[in-house]
Amino acid sequence: MPITGRRTLLQTAATLPLLAATASPVFAQASEAASSPPAKAVPAKDVTRTLAHYLVTAAYDDLPAPVRKEGVRTLLNWVGVAIGGSRHQTVDIAVAALAPFSGPAQASLLGRRERFDIMNAAFVNGVSSHIFDYDDTHLKTIIHPAGPVASAILALSEMQPVSGKDFLNALVLGVETECRIGNAVYPNHYDVGWHITGTAGVFGSAAAVGKLLNLNELQMVWALGLAASQPVGLRESFGSMNKSFNPGRAASNGIFAAMLASKNFTSSDQMIEAKRGWANVVSTKQDYSEILGDLGKRYEAALNTYKPFACGIVMHPAIDAAVQLRDENRLAADQIERVDLKVHPLVLELTGKKTPRDGLEAKFSIYHAVAVALVEGAGGEKQFSDRAANDPVVVALRSKVLPVVTPGIDPAQVDMTIVLKDGRTLRRFIARAIGSTETPMTDKQLEAKFADLAEGILPASAIRRVMDACWNVESLNSAAEIAKMAVSV
Amino acid sequence: MPITGRRTLLQTAATLPLLAATASPVFAQASEAASSPPAKAVPAKDVTRTLAHYLVTAAYDDLPAPVRKEGVRTLLNWVGVAIGGSRHQTVDIAVAALAPFSGPAQASLLGRRERFDIMNAAFVNGVSSHIFDYDDTHLKTIIHPAGPVASAILALSEMQPVSGKDFLNALVLGVETECRIGNAVYPNHYDVGWHITGTAGVFGSAAAVGKLLNLNELQMVWALGLAASQPVGLRESFGSMNKSFNPGRAASNGIFAAMLASKNFTSSDQMIEAKRGWANVVSTKQDYSEILGDLGKRYEAALNTYKPFACGIVMHPAIDAAVQLRDENRLAADQIERVDLKVHPLVLELTGKKTPRDGLEAKFSIYHAVAVALVEGAGGEKQFSDRAANDPVVVALRSKVLPVVTPGIDPAQVDMTIVLKDGRTLRRFIARAIGSTETPMTDKQLEAKFADLAEGILPASAIRRVMDACWNVESLNSAAEIAKMAVSV
Repeated sequence: MPITGRRTLLQTAATLPLLAATASPVFAQASEAASSPPAKAVPAKDVTRTLAHYLVTAAYDDLPAPVRKEGVRTLLNWVGVAIGGSRHQTVDIAVAALAPFSGPAQASLLGRRERFDIMNAAFVNGVSSHIFDYDDTHLKTIIHPAGPVASAILALSEMQPVSGKDFLNALVLGVETECRIGNAVYPNHYDVGWHITGTAGVFGSAAAVGKLLNLNELQMVWALGLAASQPVGLRESFGSMNKSFNPGRAASNGIFAAMLASKNFTSSDQMIEAKRGWANVVSTKQDYSEILGDLGKRYEAALNTYKPFACGIVMHPAIDAAVQLRDENRLAADQIERVDLKVHPLVLELTGKKTPRDGLEAKFSIYHAVAVALVEGAGGEKQFSDRAANDPVVVALRSKVLPVVTPGIDPAQVDMTIVLKDGRTLRRFIARAIGSTETPMTDKQLEAKFADLAEGILPASAIRRVMDACWNVESLNSAAEIAKMAVSV
Repeated sequence: MPITGRRTLLQTAATLPLLAATASPVFAQASEAASSPPAKAVPAKDVTRTLAHYLVTAAYDDLPAPVRKEGVRTLLNWVGVAIGGSRHQTVDIAVAALAPFSGPAQASLLGRRERFDIMNAAFVNGVSSHIFDYDDTHLKTIIHPAGPVASAILALSEMQPVSGKDFLNALVLGVETECRIGNAVYPNHYDVGWHITGTAGVFGSAAAVGKLLNLNELQMVWALGLAASQPVGLRESFGSMNKSFNPGRAASNGIFAAMLASKNFTSSDQMIEAKRGWANVVSTKQDYSEILGDLGKRYEAALNTYKPFACGIVMHPAIDAAVQLRDENRLAADQIERVDLKVHPLVLELTGKKTPRDGLEAKFSIYHAVAVALVEGAGGEKQFSDRAANDPVVVALRSKVLPVVTPGIDPAQVDMTIVLKDGRTLRRFIARAIGSTETPMTDKQLEAKFADLAEGILPASAIRRVMDACWNVESLNSAAEIAKMAVSV
């Protein structure tokens, strides 16, 4: 089993997952609590070159089976969230703004009818896939890895022939690159205010696109250098469309970097590690062993996770408990007297909104989250819609949700007791919520999430076909088939 | 006289100009010497909004005459350097790499035949204009202001009607924006390793384009926010094509930001000043009074300078002295016994290369610079070519150049004594070299520089027409005329 690094993950899992994927400025404060002091720098030598050498030589056949499998799951989850976000106002605006400038109709906008040149298409798909904050998460860094990388290489695959195996290899290498570079500077880099998905993500895009362009080692060095020159995104923009902008722009910047490098547009050969290189400029911590250690043996890409619920991870244990108890006991809302919840303090600090008025506010209400999970048996985007926030049954039930801060409950846990009107009590303790690395979503659950997101955008038959194409990506002659199936007709 | 800020400039002029516009990594060391300790932060409040309010309300008629005049000179100098760089290999590569992705042929590539969409055209023109490190310099920050701004709005002017007056107003406002934001974080921001032309420049581009798109105040806030999300460039890339990449990408990123904002793509409303906003993330110094102080009264844009010589400013005093003595005395190389130079230590530290082998090395040789200035009476790009570096007359003369580090000579000064074979001595002390704010290039000198750069690219008649159009920009019905005259036919 060549996948290591899980121990590190477990050490940090108690605090880090809270921060993932929410639009609330209050998460900024939580992040500081999670920060560790600056690590002692490891001497920097040939970091960019060594990484580039790895990238240009790493072959599909080198990938261990579990890494390939996780890459496929990463792809399927990303296609689902990109389709799901594709009709959002944010995307409508981006498409309207960029249409006058797009080059040839080279690549698809997932879930839509328009086609753009690959850079603009990658931008739009990257935006779509982050709209709901429902995409994949590398929990050690809170990077959402697929957005910058998959957006870029799926677009490229529509412009030049890319086999499914080459596509998957590039996807894994791109994810590996951005997560390793992220590890090297996290948490200091994130704490100061960078949106790490956009800053590390551009390296992932450049690496993956560069791989498919068959760059030589020096060209790959330059692609990484031009990527280092274009970090994207500040956390201050969270809560605005600018948040989704960041993975999209990281994707298109990475293509821009790789395309220039492919024609021998030069950069420094040590842009990551130089005295005034990327890592020193954007972070007070630089641990280059995270970038170079066990290349081809340890795979950060195998640690990717997928969110079962369309909200900040801090509420996931409670939603998980609610769905389990509801389904096992076939509960109806009118049977419930009250719901006692033992929670970590951050749950109330971050999601303590008692009477959310709309879908966005509902994402910051533990009361709503538990109520809607009990009523509808899910925590998807539809459960955090304006409709759900104002559903009278949910509104009535949410006042019966009684969270209590309890010592000994960590942020990844919840202890739920439902008291029924008939006097029975139902209890569930969640040690690690579904969607964590320890309790990953099953393939079937990923399919259900995908189908829920794509419903109403693609016909059911198309949804099935796209999911099958993702599962079978390694046998595709052309990865572009996935994009072509995932558009609106 | 509404232009202030010159005192600050004088205080720093002794050390800062050295750093401007060279490709040498050794300048990194000089920069640290020039750094002052972090300034105490001024409380941040409504910085982004106040700046946006100023930008959307500032009118051409508000510009004082000297500011308008300097804006015109900025334009003329920029067009000249963009044409001059347009045939460089760096530009050939960029054009070849981007052609497959460009949108409609909306805008000209100066000095060339191709036309690209405005974002890609702005990128290429921004690259061209920085190729020779011969563009304009805001000495207080070492920002090269025109590249990001003029590249963006000249391209836009070919897509929508823009009067010459509106163009000049937008140019000044864009330059003002980037230089003020640069002032707020300089020198700490530059010292840590950011290429400030690319990081502050994107604000200038977004502001200027946003002005011409007639954004409302909130849209301008978002444009600045999306600009803040896309800083470009690290000093580590100096010496590679990546350096010229930075102003180009700043230009296109600014258009990208403003275009999205014009369709109401949202961002934070305090991206510059927030706790985790741009200034705090990219610098340990934030002085917001530099951004907001005396808006519409103090003009950084009036402090722009233009380089008479195509090399680092540290050699400018010596070249200036050599050209003056040569021209006044009609000197020929074979009359010269030796040239004694009293110089500041940095001159030898930064430009001490005795036997440069090519044009690039010649840019770091005070021996070559003085010799070629005495032989050819100039210090333009042609004097730093491979041809000039290997000219036997220049090579012979450079061994007779004898610089001596002398206490009391500051870096902006030189004391030159030429000993002739007939026994005469000619002496010239330069207190402030030509091209400084105190001894600006004359309009006539700017024209000579322009003509020298454009020679061989545009016919002489076209060169004259383009210069006239720049001088008369305020009377043009369409600023696009400048671009249309400045292309190869």
